[in-house]
Amino acid sequence: MTDRFLKACRREPVDRTPLWIMRQAGRYLPEYRELRQKVDFLTLCKTPELAVEASLQPLRRFPLDASIIFSDILLPLEALGVKMTFNPGPKLAEPVRTRAQVDALESRPAAEAVPFVGEAVRLLRRELDGRTPVIGFCGAPFTLAAYLVQGEGKEGFGAVKTMLYREPATLAHLLEKLTAAMIDYLRLQIAAGAQAVQIFDSWAGLLAPMQYESFALRWVRAIVDGVADLGAPIIYFVNGGPHLLEDAATSGADVLGLCWRTPLDVAAVRVGPAIALQGNLDPHALFAEPAEVTKLANDVLARVAGRPGHIMNLGHGILPDTPIASVEALVAAVQATARRDAA
Amino acid sequence: MTDRFLKACRREPVDRTPLWIMRQAGRYLPEYRELRQKVDFLTLCKTPELAVEASLQPLRRFPLDASIIFSDILLPLEALGVKMTFNPGPKLAEPVRTRAQVDALESRPAAEAVPFVGEAVRLLRRELDGRTPVIGFCGAPFTLAAYLVQGEGKEGFGAVKTMLYREPATLAHLLEKLTAAMIDYLRLQIAAGAQAVQIFDSWAGLLAPMQYESFALRWVRAIVDGVADLGAPIIYFVNGGPHLLEDAATSGADVLGLCWRTPLDVAAVRVGPAIALQGNLDPHALFAEPAEVTKLANDVLARVAGRPGHIMNLGHGILPDTPIASVEALVAAVQATARRDAA
Repeated sequence: MTDRFLKACRREPVDRTPLWIMRQAGRYLPEYRELRQKVDFLTLCKTPELAVEASLQPLRRFPLDASIIFSDILLPLEALGVKMTFNPGPKLAEPVRTRAQVDALESRPAAEAVPFVGEAVRLLRRELDGRTPVIGFCGAPFTLAAYLVQGEGKEGFGAVKTMLYREPATLAHLLEKLTAAMIDYLRLQIAAGAQAVQIFDSWAGLLAPMQYESFALRWVRAIVDGVADLGAPIIYFVNGGPHLLEDAATSGADVLGLCWRTPLDVAAVRVGPAIALQGNLDPHALFAEPAEVTKLANDVLARVAGRPGHIMNLGHGILPDTPIASVEALVAAVQATARRDAA
Repeated sequence: MTDRFLKACRREPVDRTPLWIMRQAGRYLPEYRELRQKVDFLTLCKTPELAVEASLQPLRRFPLDASIIFSDILLPLEALGVKMTFNPGPKLAEPVRTRAQVDALESRPAAEAVPFVGEAVRLLRRELDGRTPVIGFCGAPFTLAAYLVQGEGKEGFGAVKTMLYREPATLAHLLEKLTAAMIDYLRLQIAAGAQAVQIFDSWAGLLAPMQYESFALRWVRAIVDGVADLGAPIIYFVNGGPHLLEDAATSGADVLGLCWRTPLDVAAVRVGPAIALQGNLDPHALFAEPAEVTKLANDVLARVAGRPGHIMNLGHGILPDTPIASVEALVAAVQATARRDAA
């Protein structure tokens, strides 16, 4: 088994820097687009065989060091009774904006509400047969609340911020419910075979440090505490949070995932040596010519060369129009680190 | 004349902290909404008497310390031959994505292409009769390019970032043209009577520090250099740029305007004493109860109390649904600093 990804999560020595790519099973792959012509996004997520097929597609093309289960951070909200569609962005049947709506949220076990996710993880683990580790994931409570309160993805997610200032107790109550649901959901995935999990905090960067602790970080800490006994490494990814790095590094997670805004050498100094780092090539960098992609990937790698615990990745999800040749250049740059490290 | 705003720009002693509010003439004011029922946005911007009326509305309600001319950062792009509509967000007739399109951009003098802006500034200055200073403004080149290349406002402004990596020379050429146009445009406003100017870099925060210098900051520096001889203080506002603060402080501007993400005491340490600071109450904080608004505004003020050169403002434009009572609480908090400073 190629375990350099899990070793890097634990800041143990590796033969070369491991690489996986956020949203690696996605529209930039012709075979994924073909799959999506046959089934809609929700059916794909909810059919274990299809979700596994999507999860495996990028691994057939590229020698990536981890496989992330194909799903969406909003799916487990079905355990709270939330109904949604994707077209292509998520749209909730009804935004959750009042105390009564928060009170009315259900708390069904994930194993009952979204059993297909556990099934898919189990199946993916079997298909991979130890070749690469499986990553499970969930959304961080504030990020999930941003979608729930807004009712859809929207720049700035004003609705959740209005709730934060106008009805902080309602928001805290919502975050508490989401936290409990995500602990249950991650435990389901780890029990099904996920060997690491990532918590996506895509919108925590909308908060100032004064709000971040109360409305985002403390709930992430609760999730980390709630699954730590299972022993799977935990990655906490924060998008747009260069002002939150020092705090984010105290979540208890093994790895801090960074967006492209903070150079890794700067981040390494700010968070100290006791946490691994994941990232952080700008997804738009993959629109450069392949030779330039190599240069930009090498720049990211060089910034933390020699620091134990680096997982190469993009700073956000790979974009739908990304050229395959750019991904190949990224992969080659990472593979070249083995020769460099040995030299 | 109440010149505490201009004094604070220059880090001179003031009787109390000055206050103005980004987008202070806007939809949160019933009288503005009434005005907009009679005329569309572009007509309002292009009719000096109406633009002045909009500019004056917030001053009739609140004792603000500066008046900003009512306009939009995209309007002067008409000098480059760009056509646009607002409904309510901006939409360009055609995105500018190729070298040929950049080459074809016109370079008409602002005085000829958008003479109504100079007229409006002149009229506003006369109407105010020295009661408060007039602020002129423009968009920073990267932010203008983000709209020009995308063709509209869109989360992440992917098109300009794709151009940055795929065709950096084309983007540089576009930024050069925008810089020349903005120097001309700010000079027009200052000649017409603007006593200070603000450069809005709303989207520079999408850049990592490695790109920020080449694609944003150097062009802002060129604008600052291009108008410095006129002696009007210059404010450089950067949204979403907590990772860019130290660099942004070297633009040459007198004042650095900050979004709500970085606490002002943290920012003050990072940028040093040689630049004034503007901001940075979270616009969403105005959705809290008035007593809480007072507390939050006092927190911002306290973080730089005693530091010469603070202009109170929001960290971004005021939101359309903002309660008037919250603005009153903000104004009262700022006015109370006079008593505190005297005590």
